[in-house]
Amino acid sequence: MSKGMSGKTIFDELDPIFHPRSVAVLGASAKQGKIARVLMDRFLEMGFKPLYPVNPRESEIMGLRVFHNIKDVPGPVDLAIILTPTDAALAAVKDCVTKKVKTIVVTTSGFGEAGEQGRKVQQEMVRIARKGGTRIIGPNCVGIYCPSSKLPFLCQAGKDSGTVGVVSQSGFFADFITQTACANNIKFSKAISCGNEADLNAVDFLEYLGEDPETELIAGYIEGVKDGRRFYELSREISKKKPIILWKGGLTEAGARAAVSHTGAIAGSRAVWEGALRQAGIVGARSFEEVFDYLYAFYNQPLPKGKRVGIISGPGSTAVGTTDICLELGLELPHFSKETVEKLRRIIPPVGGSVNNPIDLSLASLVNPLIHKDAIDAVARDKNIDMLLLITVIGGEQLREIVLDATRNVENKKPLVVTLMGGTTQEVAQDFPLMLGSGISVYPDAARAAKVLKKLWEYAEFRAGGSICI
Amino acid sequence: MSKGMSGKTIFDELDPIFHPRSVAVLGASAKQGKIARVLMDRFLEMGFKPLYPVNPRESEIMGLRVFHNIKDVPGPVDLAIILTPTDAALAAVKDCVTKKVKTIVVTTSGFGEAGEQGRKVQQEMVRIARKGGTRIIGPNCVGIYCPSSKLPFLCQAGKDSGTVGVVSQSGFFADFITQTACANNIKFSKAISCGNEADLNAVDFLEYLGEDPETELIAGYIEGVKDGRRFYELSREISKKKPIILWKGGLTEAGARAAVSHTGAIAGSRAVWEGALRQAGIVGARSFEEVFDYLYAFYNQPLPKGKRVGIISGPGSTAVGTTDICLELGLELPHFSKETVEKLRRIIPPVGGSVNNPIDLSLASLVNPLIHKDAIDAVARDKNIDMLLLITVIGGEQLREIVLDATRNVENKKPLVVTLMGGTTQEVAQDFPLMLGSGISVYPDAARAAKVLKKLWEYAEFRAGGSICI
Repeated sequence: MSKGMSGKTIFDELDPIFHPRSVAVLGASAKQGKIARVLMDRFLEMGFKPLYPVNPRESEIMGLRVFHNIKDVPGPVDLAIILTPTDAALAAVKDCVTKKVKTIVVTTSGFGEAGEQGRKVQQEMVRIARKGGTRIIGPNCVGIYCPSSKLPFLCQAGKDSGTVGVVSQSGFFADFITQTACANNIKFSKAISCGNEADLNAVDFLEYLGEDPETELIAGYIEGVKDGRRFYELSREISKKKPIILWKGGLTEAGARAAVSHTGAIAGSRAVWEGALRQAGIVGARSFEEVFDYLYAFYNQPLPKGKRVGIISGPGSTAVGTTDICLELGLELPHFSKETVEKLRRIIPPVGGSVNNPIDLSLASLVNPLIHKDAIDAVARDKNIDMLLLITVIGGEQLREIVLDATRNVENKKPLVVTLMGGTTQEVAQDFPLMLGSGISVYPDAARAAKVLKKLWEYAEFRAGGSICI
Repeated sequence: MSKGMSGKTIFDELDPIFHPRSVAVLGASAKQGKIARVLMDRFLEMGFKPLYPVNPRESEIMGLRVFHNIKDVPGPVDLAIILTPTDAALAAVKDCVTKKVKTIVVTTSGFGEAGEQGRKVQQEMVRIARKGGTRIIGPNCVGIYCPSSKLPFLCQAGKDSGTVGVVSQSGFFADFITQTACANNIKFSKAISCGNEADLNAVDFLEYLGEDPETELIAGYIEGVKDGRRFYELSREISKKKPIILWKGGLTEAGARAAVSHTGAIAGSRAVWEGALRQAGIVGARSFEEVFDYLYAFYNQPLPKGKRVGIISGPGSTAVGTTDICLELGLELPHFSKETVEKLRRIIPPVGGSVNNPIDLSLASLVNPLIHKDAIDAVARDKNIDMLLLITVIGGEQLREIVLDATRNVENKKPLVVTLMGGTTQEVAQDFPLMLGSGISVYPDAARAAKVLKKLWEYAEFRAGGSICI
């Protein structure tokens, strides 16, 4: 654990940020369509108190007394969020420092990412803040989310606290991940959008989340880091305890160019990055869909002991095609034990199905959905199998009960991922939150479910012995 | 165009199958939960007449007179669908041949896919049928769908006729593709599930769809073909006129083993298959999701003139990450023309956005969604750009109007694919049918949208000059 500016550990230094006694919002507004209004709505939904809106031209906002300057607030302010226009932000920072605010989130943009002049202004913000012992998050960010402290995000990210920590150089990533995953019943410990990282940066918060006892799993988006060595060593240490699902943007030259205008980050060489991510045991993702897919697996599943997959499929064609995908990903589909085959013979009709791996449950799976349960139970107990992939068309409550019943009594917990092929995208979408909130990792397509198993196994390999080897 | 058994072209020989004057259902039933009941429901929904239910133990089914044997039906029967138990199917085929039925769909399973004895029974079916000039589809299949003739599938695949033809050795594939895509407002010309291919096979129907003037685009699933050379040459010829989106199951050894118990097909060597598919200009897919993704692009988009992509993104991080994906797929992201950059400068705020490729519309895209329209219009007219990728969080009706307005007046039509990142999966799912039914190709993730552009370009390359080269 490294030491921060103050000689304290990063954890001790950053943890108070997430537990402020009071919050001020500079540039607060009740006007519909303004970001400041959205944030006020969120704070009121969360019920955080005391909250001090600051705006030189208002006296009351949404039932709260407004202060014309943060310096007028009677008690101490631990966290200030600046949403003023760009040209008023530096003065707002000065006022916050005078007020001895502990942390300032500068949401306002138009600084380092906009060019040289903006970069100078944000440097000046940091200089002033440091003199007063104040830390800055941003500018150009959506700030911090911590449901256990009633600190909201701009998006509606849920009130319940959970185990996923998010750190992101992109505000959209942090918002989108938390909002979408919350709607799917995944719960978060903390989320931090660092923006231009004028003071605190993504690696600081990565280190914090690594130490944070509330956080068991980390999802992140970065475009570049100032200290690559620190990032690598830290990630490698954290990965030994908690999975880090990371999307690194700007791996290609054109992507790196785009990153400069996005967050001002220098993205660095692709080969170096790819090697470092792999050796640090990071679960690499390349799109939002991959981040969600991996998150839903690591959140709900144990790590596998090996790479031997058992496929249980209703649809025969998907059994065949998914077998191809698994093998191409480097997974194995071994034969079941004699005992398992015997059990399967008793439940799967001799015509139209298959008791070998991949299991084809045949049309019988529609007539009698409970054969899913017996098949899962049999395969979950097979010592030749490390992970299960269930492919089915039955949805909702029935599928949830079958999966939970089938796995409840199996002693050696193995990852089980479910592919739910509904009649329409809409029907499947309705079943997703139900399943995910019950501890079931569910995907709309079997190729994605197979890829998830590969990621679970890769990470398990890293945890067992070092770097990821495929 | 090859000649069939009778000396006629395959098209002339198979087209009457899809235009029967009358249909008999052998093994018809009104019992809930029986497949035969489901099929009766579908026939009544479609309104096909005259329909003759045949069942030795019933006198009326769902308001229709039941015949104890197909031979008792007064008028001619062009199409018979056999849903009897396995051990009654051969006798049913004999009766159909005596009745001079033109085509028999044997839905019943338990034949070639179940072992040697079943294979002999299906051979006997074919021998008897051939003597009477009758053709057989199946056994072990879900038959044929042709909305223009009111012929239903087992699934609810819609009443309206369209341009997509489906041929599949898997019944589930045929059902799932038609049902799901219909729910997304994609319309089909014909769909055929060939099952065990005792007589007519997937390649016959592929040739038919290639010639069928109603069919402009083909989606298929195959595990193996008897005559690989014929398949290759035929696919190559069809691909010069119509795209074939094909999922080949059983590419790996274990996948091929699974295919034998699924449809009894011999899957063949992977290297040979991969080379043949590529050289035949086939749009290869490896999962249901890929089939849908490509279908929604080829159904709604023109072919591109080149591989130069213009990205227009609301979220900055997705712009960066998607640039990476495009370049890794072999696509290009060139600079925009000076004229385009000038236009973009007038609509995108100087702070927080980017007028270069990839365009970052910044938060302004949320405040004023109409800048999407101006940006699309500008990029669509840029002669440096062949294809557009729009990434947005605005959904539904508003997005549809923006995209349609922006592209309506652009002379040189270019493919435009949309990534719609909704707040939750469920919201996005509701917007999909709306967009797809309006001619907009929409995806929930930008990496998938990028892959679709690659496929459009690959196929355009094939059409322009021969085999696919990446």
